[in-house]
Amino acid sequence: ARTFATNAYGNSTVFEPLDTFPRRHIGPDDADIAKMCQTVGVSSLDHLVEKTVPASITIKNQTKLGPGVPETEVLERLKHIASKNKVFRSYIGMGYTNTVTPKVILRNIMENPGWYTQYTPYQPEISQGRLESLLNFQTMVCDLTGLPVANASLLDEGTAAAEAMIMCFAQGKRKKNIFFVDQACHPQTIACVKTRAEGFGIQVVVGDYEKYDFAANKGNVMGVLIQYPTTDGRVLDYESFVEKAHDNGAMVTCATDLLALALLKPPGEFGVDIAFGNSQRFGVPLGYGGPHAAFFSVREDLKRNMPGRLIGVSKDVDGNKAYRLALQTREQHIRREKATSNICTAQALLANMAAMYAVYHGPEGVRDIAQRIHNLTAVLAEGVKKLGHNVKTESFFDTITVELKYDAEELVIAAADAGINVRQVDARSIAVTLDETVTKEDLYDLLRVFATASFEESYRHGSRKQFFAPMPILDTIAQELGISATSPAQKFPSQLSRTSKYLTHPIFNSHHSETDMLRYISHLQSKDLSLAEAMIPLGSCTMKLNATTEMIPVTWPEFSSIHPFVPVDQASGYRIMLQELEYALSEVTGFDQISLQPNSGAQGEYTGLRVIKAYLQSQGQQTRDVCLIPVSAHGTNPASAAMAGFKVVTVRCEENGNLDLEDLRAKAEKHKDNLAATMITYPSTYGVFEETIVEACKIVHEFGGQVYMDGANLNAQLGLCKPAEIGADVCHLNLHKTFCIPHGGGGPGMGPIGVKSHLAPFLPGHPVVKTSGELAIGPVSAAPWGSASILPISWAYLKMMGDEGVAHATKIALLNANYIMKRLEKHYKILYTNDHGLCAHEFIIDCRPFDASAHVQGIDIAKRLHDYGFHSPTMSFPVANTLMVEPTESESKAELDRFCDAMIHIREEIRQIEEGKQPRDNNVLTRSPHPIHQLLVDNWDRPYSRNTAAYPVKELRAKKFWPSVGRVDDTFGDRNLICSCPPIEEYEQDD
Amino acid sequence: ARTFATNAYGNSTVFEPLDTFPRRHIGPDDADIAKMCQTVGVSSLDHLVEKTVPASITIKNQTKLGPGVPETEVLERLKHIASKNKVFRSYIGMGYTNTVTPKVILRNIMENPGWYTQYTPYQPEISQGRLESLLNFQTMVCDLTGLPVANASLLDEGTAAAEAMIMCFAQGKRKKNIFFVDQACHPQTIACVKTRAEGFGIQVVVGDYEKYDFAANKGNVMGVLIQYPTTDGRVLDYESFVEKAHDNGAMVTCATDLLALALLKPPGEFGVDIAFGNSQRFGVPLGYGGPHAAFFSVREDLKRNMPGRLIGVSKDVDGNKAYRLALQTREQHIRREKATSNICTAQALLANMAAMYAVYHGPEGVRDIAQRIHNLTAVLAEGVKKLGHNVKTESFFDTITVELKYDAEELVIAAADAGINVRQVDARSIAVTLDETVTKEDLYDLLRVFATASFEESYRHGSRKQFFAPMPILDTIAQELGISATSPAQKFPSQLSRTSKYLTHPIFNSHHSETDMLRYISHLQSKDLSLAEAMIPLGSCTMKLNATTEMIPVTWPEFSSIHPFVPVDQASGYRIMLQELEYALSEVTGFDQISLQPNSGAQGEYTGLRVIKAYLQSQGQQTRDVCLIPVSAHGTNPASAAMAGFKVVTVRCEENGNLDLEDLRAKAEKHKDNLAATMITYPSTYGVFEETIVEACKIVHEFGGQVYMDGANLNAQLGLCKPAEIGADVCHLNLHKTFCIPHGGGGPGMGPIGVKSHLAPFLPGHPVVKTSGELAIGPVSAAPWGSASILPISWAYLKMMGDEGVAHATKIALLNANYIMKRLEKHYKILYTNDHGLCAHEFIIDCRPFDASAHVQGIDIAKRLHDYGFHSPTMSFPVANTLMVEPTESESKAELDRFCDAMIHIREEIRQIEEGKQPRDNNVLTRSPHPIHQLLVDNWDRPYSRNTAAYPVKELRAKKFWPSVGRVDDTFGDRNLICSCPPIEEYEQDD
Ligand SMILES: Cc1ncc(COP(=O)(O)O)c(C=O)c1O
Ligand SMILES: Cc1ncc(COP(=O)(O)O)c(C=O)c1O
Ligand SMILES: O=C([O-])O
Repeated sequence: ARTFATNAYGNSTVFEPLDTFPRRHIGPDDADIAKMCQTVGVSSLDHLVEKTVPASITIKNQTKLGPGVPETEVLERLKHIASKNKVFRSYIGMGYTNTVTPKVILRNIMENPGWYTQYTPYQPEISQGRLESLLNFQTMVCDLTGLPVANASLLDEGTAAAEAMIMCFAQGKRKKNIFFVDQACHPQTIACVKTRAEGFGIQVVVGDYEKYDFAANKGNVMGVLIQYPTTDGRVLDYESFVEKAHDNGAMVTCATDLLALALLKPPGEFGVDIAFGNSQRFGVPLGYGGPHAAFFSVREDLKRNMPGRLIGVSKDVDGNKAYRLALQTREQHIRREKATSNICTAQALLANMAAMYAVYHGPEGVRDIAQRIHNLTAVLAEGVKKLGHNVKTESFFDTITVELKYDAEELVIAAADAGINVRQVDARSIAVTLDETVTKEDLYDLLRVFATASFEESYRHGSRKQFFAPMPILDTIAQELGISATSPAQKFPSQLSRTSKYLTHPIFNSHHSETDMLRYISHLQSKDLSLAEAMIPLGSCTMKLNATTEMIPVTWPEFSSIHPFVPVDQASGYRIMLQELEYALSEVTGFDQISLQPNSGAQGEYTGLRVIKAYLQSQGQQTRDVCLIPVSAHGTNPASAAMAGFKVVTVRCEENGNLDLEDLRAKAEKHKDNLAATMITYPSTYGVFEETIVEACKIVHEFGGQVYMDGANLNAQLGLCKPAEIGADVCHLNLHKTFCIPHGGGGPGMGPIGVKSHLAPFLPGHPVVKTSGELAIGPVSAAPWGSASILPISWAYLKMMGDEGVAHATKIALLNANYIMKRLEKHYKILYTNDHGLCAHEFIIDCRPFDASAHVQGIDIAKRLHDYGFHSPTMSFPVANTLMVEPTESESKAELDRFCDAMIHIREEIRQIEEGKQPRDNNVLTRSPHPIHQLLVDNWDRPYSRNTAAYPVKELRAKKFWPSVGRVDDTFGDRNLICSCPPIEEYEQDD
Repeated sequence: ARTFATNAYGNSTVFEPLDTFPRRHIGPDDADIAKMCQTVGVSSLDHLVEKTVPASITIKNQTKLGPGVPETEVLERLKHIASKNKVFRSYIGMGYTNTVTPKVILRNIMENPGWYTQYTPYQPEISQGRLESLLNFQTMVCDLTGLPVANASLLDEGTAAAEAMIMCFAQGKRKKNIFFVDQACHPQTIACVKTRAEGFGIQVVVGDYEKYDFAANKGNVMGVLIQYPTTDGRVLDYESFVEKAHDNGAMVTCATDLLALALLKPPGEFGVDIAFGNSQRFGVPLGYGGPHAAFFSVREDLKRNMPGRLIGVSKDVDGNKAYRLALQTREQHIRREKATSNICTAQALLANMAAMYAVYHGPEGVRDIAQRIHNLTAVLAEGVKKLGHNVKTESFFDTITVELKYDAEELVIAAADAGINVRQVDARSIAVTLDETVTKEDLYDLLRVFATASFEESYRHGSRKQFFAPMPILDTIAQELGISATSPAQKFPSQLSRTSKYLTHPIFNSHHSETDMLRYISHLQSKDLSLAEAMIPLGSCTMKLNATTEMIPVTWPEFSSIHPFVPVDQASGYRIMLQELEYALSEVTGFDQISLQPNSGAQGEYTGLRVIKAYLQSQGQQTRDVCLIPVSAHGTNPASAAMAGFKVVTVRCEENGNLDLEDLRAKAEKHKDNLAATMITYPSTYGVFEETIVEACKIVHEFGGQVYMDGANLNAQLGLCKPAEIGADVCHLNLHKTFCIPHGGGGPGMGPIGVKSHLAPFLPGHPVVKTSGELAIGPVSAAPWGSASILPISWAYLKMMGDEGVAHATKIALLNANYIMKRLEKHYKILYTNDHGLCAHEFIIDCRPFDASAHVQGIDIAKRLHDYGFHSPTMSFPVANTLMVEPTESESKAELDRFCDAMIHIREEIRQIEEGKQPRDNNVLTRSPHPIHQLLVDNWDRPYSRNTAAYPVKELRAKKFWPSVGRVDDTFGDRNLICSCPPIEEYEQDD
């Protein structure tokens, strides 16, 4: 029997539907739970909770989510809510356009758990598929922007701009503090840049690039930002400006549009140092603002300073080409408070989609799409002129700004009546952005709106004389302009016409039929271990079920086809869903208000700290700038604190992993005049509910600081305790961990924050769509609600689980972790347990003893686990040479046992080395993992058999996931950094 | 450049959308085509057509499909059409009910090309996944019906009933000719049985089983058919009737309901010999009648005579357990005119879904669902009684028949007003069938309809006094009846209560969380080669692209949630789509009318022949009963002819494979008084367009016969010639070949027929929904339009291709086949080409010479191809020990070359044996395929290396699909027939 089968509900009647969800989400059934409790040494789940969760923090106000809603019903409800969104034709532009998602990509990547449940490819041997695809993304970005190195995605264009600014700042050795931004950038970009500038004390100057006086700020301008094409559509020749900036010691960063670059001279060819933008229009649905992948490319010599993840080409032990995440040592989790960026979770899944779009269309296809949009825009401009309006954009790609004969607001209303959105630029002007989905009929619809006249005569109140002006004929316009399939439009200066090639690599020239494309996607997928294959027991990552019912609404057009800047009345469905989600998140955390803007956990941290800063300022406490962070904290914590303008002071931990309360008190006292905040992860990164948490919060409060809780480990708390009740003032919630948004191979994610009421007025605002009040800090994401289209996932999860389900899931998460720990503790040293010898939802295995005993490291165990068909646990966080295991509640006892058996068997393999039966440097661990081809060599000269390598436990003969390359050489890859697709000859050599 | 990129259209303007489809559907691009033409020795595609398609048959009336519609637009159009269907709550029952498709099954099987593009698992080494799943299906059916052997699906319940009757007939050695059918069977079942009976000269007697007088027909009754529960819902105790039937030498067949059997004593326990039914309600959407899998189970001693495919457990060369299609030698393609069944394509994909439903729910879950439905039905019955109506069904499971206080028609209308469909039984009675999706609100809605009163006072014309009768409270009823979660209803005789267990196998008791289920599905998928991995070059099967855009509408609720027997005005969208499809099929074939009823090619054959028969009868030519069939014909042809009541006379073929025209004329002349028809496959099964086809048709017509064309090879004709213009009177169209319905691992399919106008009046009718006129033959499928919900696939294909696309595809199909043939003809003997040395869309490789030269057979080459990552071509059809290759237009030149390289390399491997360099009985061919575990043995003792076995060509190192077992032992499997999941100990022994 499974708890939560309806007939196991106490109060159920014969009428309850049977498609209840918690029993599908949760792995172990009742019989398993009983057995596991026994192994753990507790009499029941409640007994387990009693022995793991301190009584002092257990939940005070029971959550009020209501009973779990069955799967069918939840989809019906959400469909009803979604139907309140109005799917208009949007020509608003501003970095977001409609796009045709090739269905083969939609179904086989975006809707495929084999792709969306993958984790960030930290284990290259079982991730070659998505690594290749992300390398394609980088290559595509390099080609189109004309810069040699690109990363594997950032969160959005606004934060990419902020990252670019900070790179300029760092390149200027933090000595120059002016960043000039041209006023023709998207407003949300400018706003995000301004927000980020504050923490670094950077002065952002917004103005007209043509008029900017570098001389006046001689030597103090570290960088400039221009947009190409501009937000209102102009395609400008920046060459002399770039020269001037460089002459004045400023770096040049450039927001741009990948599709425009198919026709336009790329930024890399007119001297730009950093180019970035949004790849959404490469096949990623609008989604009311996200998710989609921002791109970022730089000059060769900047590559080691780039934010975000970078895929590199390296080789494996056998010398075969192998991809990997390059320069990991450069990442924020190593640099901590010296970091200039805190980005972890990015937008891998969406980067893969954009890359596949380029693979599917190829250079000709991409150019055709760009050219067609440009042709249509040229025809539209002419049509609008014929209707007597003044087109202000003389040089353009896909966007024109039109000065109207009458009030812009009137036209906006007329457009809305026709189911069309345009952008209002000012009282008299509107802008229109075209995209690949536009048809001839759409153009007529648009022109009809421009033709609708007599606005003066109270258009709004009846007497609508529509179709006043005579409608121009589109074919005639095309003819007059001389635009045809063979004679394309070119409405920009000829020196800006693209001459260089792009997407020349065979990868972009081979998969243009659906069959070939499907096979390419499926081949890459077959190399990667996802949740569809096995448990991914990554500590601190919470790789739980991403249920199909949660995923299905994401690609409903009512959610996926909405532009983020539509009038609010068109997004009523979104508003309802967002409000219900905010309510539910408040319920489970105890916070008074939620901001759904931050796009990742790290962004949430940054946002929370900025909010604290704003609050302190409002209290006249602006001098408070010290942030206390335990040594055990995730690297994002100090990174975010530094970025938010805090001074990081480290707090020690005790031997047993607990926060050193004395040290906390001492540091708090020492900095009492400047204490701003503390950042605490709870349960701690060591996997234990510390008894002292309440006390710790009290201390910080006592000395005038705010408590920031890192919510990465919320999966251990939900339904049992609440961050706000424990004492936190603010906390981020990684929806891609506890709340079921899939990891997508490294993103998307969402990191909303919850705050107590005193902080609520400061939650982030947005320059285009109102999200907050007057005291709001600036936006931290380009879109008002971050990646809104994936929020239905968390909404559905909480609805389907209900109060009981949520609490039960947490208990099982605790049980699963403790069960594995108990089975393993006879074989491995476990770091840090509580007084009862129990852990929270994860625990750490100490691998350091094996260094001396067998010359075996944590990484050897991790790689050997691949041979057993498992993703490895988190390596060396928070303690070097350890493995942190987090099973989550979704894993069944059978899978946990399979993992335990593997680990125990590996322990025996280590013993063989310890006992001298196997050599220390040539054994089944150090030479793992074993891809098939390694095992088929004619002369097998290893001191263990092929079968020992491949099938250490017999179950593997029936089911085994194979790594596709041997152990990947990290050092080689970092030294010889290659970050775009290697030339085809390379492939041939490999064979 | 790719033809059909919009800018390659002659008349395109800048306004055309770019998401054109033909270039995605077709593999080679223009550059490839040029190269391939060169290899083939033609100057252009048109030149190729000239040299392959006889001038005498080239198209006379150009097709008028219109230009191809782009992908986005086609989905918009279809969505618009679909929106005209009204999705009501249907309680019509009659074998079709709503069901909850678990989303994990929906997304990962039904919407997953890894499952839906598989072919029938004739190659077990690369099909273990779906073989296991189909074995689960068989086990589930055995368990629930209480009979020991079940097959892997039939087309629908109606034809399953017909198959059961024919089994009785055959068991009675065709000597007894009465089949008694109880009147309480579904009307469509009775009708299908009657249709089938005609060809065999069986007399179907319909009556009340309790009154049937066996004695009066002593010794002449070969079988009886009863339904359990009956169509009007009654659960009857048939035990004494079964005894009586047996005593009178009649077999007992029983239509039943798998879900009811979770509560009811199974037919196998009261003596039934054959049980069958429809597994639709196990998670397969209604789909306006199909597709779904019928099931069929029998007594142990009947197993070798069962129709349809049977999965058996055998072992591979290493003695490991391995599944396979058992008893293939018994199949119709061997038995030909002695066959009693012609079924090939069945319903594998849907059988897999149903099996997975049972795997996901397990025995408890299935029972809970059944019990809940029964509880609700009990409550409903009581509620209806309280409203003053008379419930006629005293003993029931999920269906009650109600005698109303007023006219039934009035209630039907009131229900429709409330968005509800019920079944009208007669003037005063209606029936209601509940299902798993029914909620408490639904019950209230239903009761409200029953409460709506004063029908007498012209309900239809205003004055509706709704809610006249006071509404009963459901909870009160449940309480009164004593029904609760712990005290379930039992509204059937206690001796019919199920006591035996079912679904006890671990497979049904292990995967109840979504994570476990996903992994199980994904694990099985990983063993199977589908079109997502590689070309499946099966001659006569046309394994082309099943495009995502074609597939998406199938699971739209507007198509998938419609009951087949709803009033026609609720299915207007379907009607439009069906009519447009009929129009398009008429256009491409030249026929005057189309019947969309037959569910497979073989059913199409049968239907066409029955139509011919009816036509001849109408002409007073009832004595005509000879059907001329070439020896080269597919086994279904003679089988269908025999089933339709024809005498099969074989026509010879010439040396070169061509039909022997002289022999045809001689036989036609000889049988001129009785000549009814000929069946011709065109291009011939030998893969050649015979010049003489027009002449052949003329001869048959001259002697008074009709021409039946087997349309399996239509992929060579479309847009170049038309069956009706060539001379055919009727032709079936395998929509799962030429028209892109995926094969689903052995179904679903659709085999509509096209006919000339003189045959049109005889196209099949239907007892419930009008599909045809008075002269119509009886139905050949249970649903009026067969598997209606997959017809959007073919609709979308033809719309997106348009006239040019369709013709271009055919030309490329010819080119691809000829290209491979030309590359291989230097290495292999090609059987049968035309005078120019060219083939049609497929060709045959003769493997017979290798028997003498190297002791190598076709099967060895086929299995060795698995090692190269390919599905093998069709084996031994139409000539023993040959391989028939059909690439289709969807394969790119790169994939064709990969195949050619593999074949050429295999030829070299054969040469090694021929030259004595490798032994004749222990070589890389005879020991193929090589699964990984075989290659990892410690002591490698084969005369070739592991690498030679695994990576004969270097490209395999980068991408290889591995067989999961070694060569499977067919003989062992057939001798030791095991057709349900082996006990768990078996699994353990394997390890
Ligand atoms: C403890 C902790 N804090 C913060 C983060 C950063 O979250 P994100 O990757 O969503 O930015 C992580 C990510 O794993 C984490 O484990
Ligand atoms: C020539 C020919 N005729 C008939 C059939 C039977 O078609 P179906 O499997 O759709 O019943 C086939 C199937 O492959 C065939 O090749
Ligand atoms: O029998 C066949 O399906 O070819």
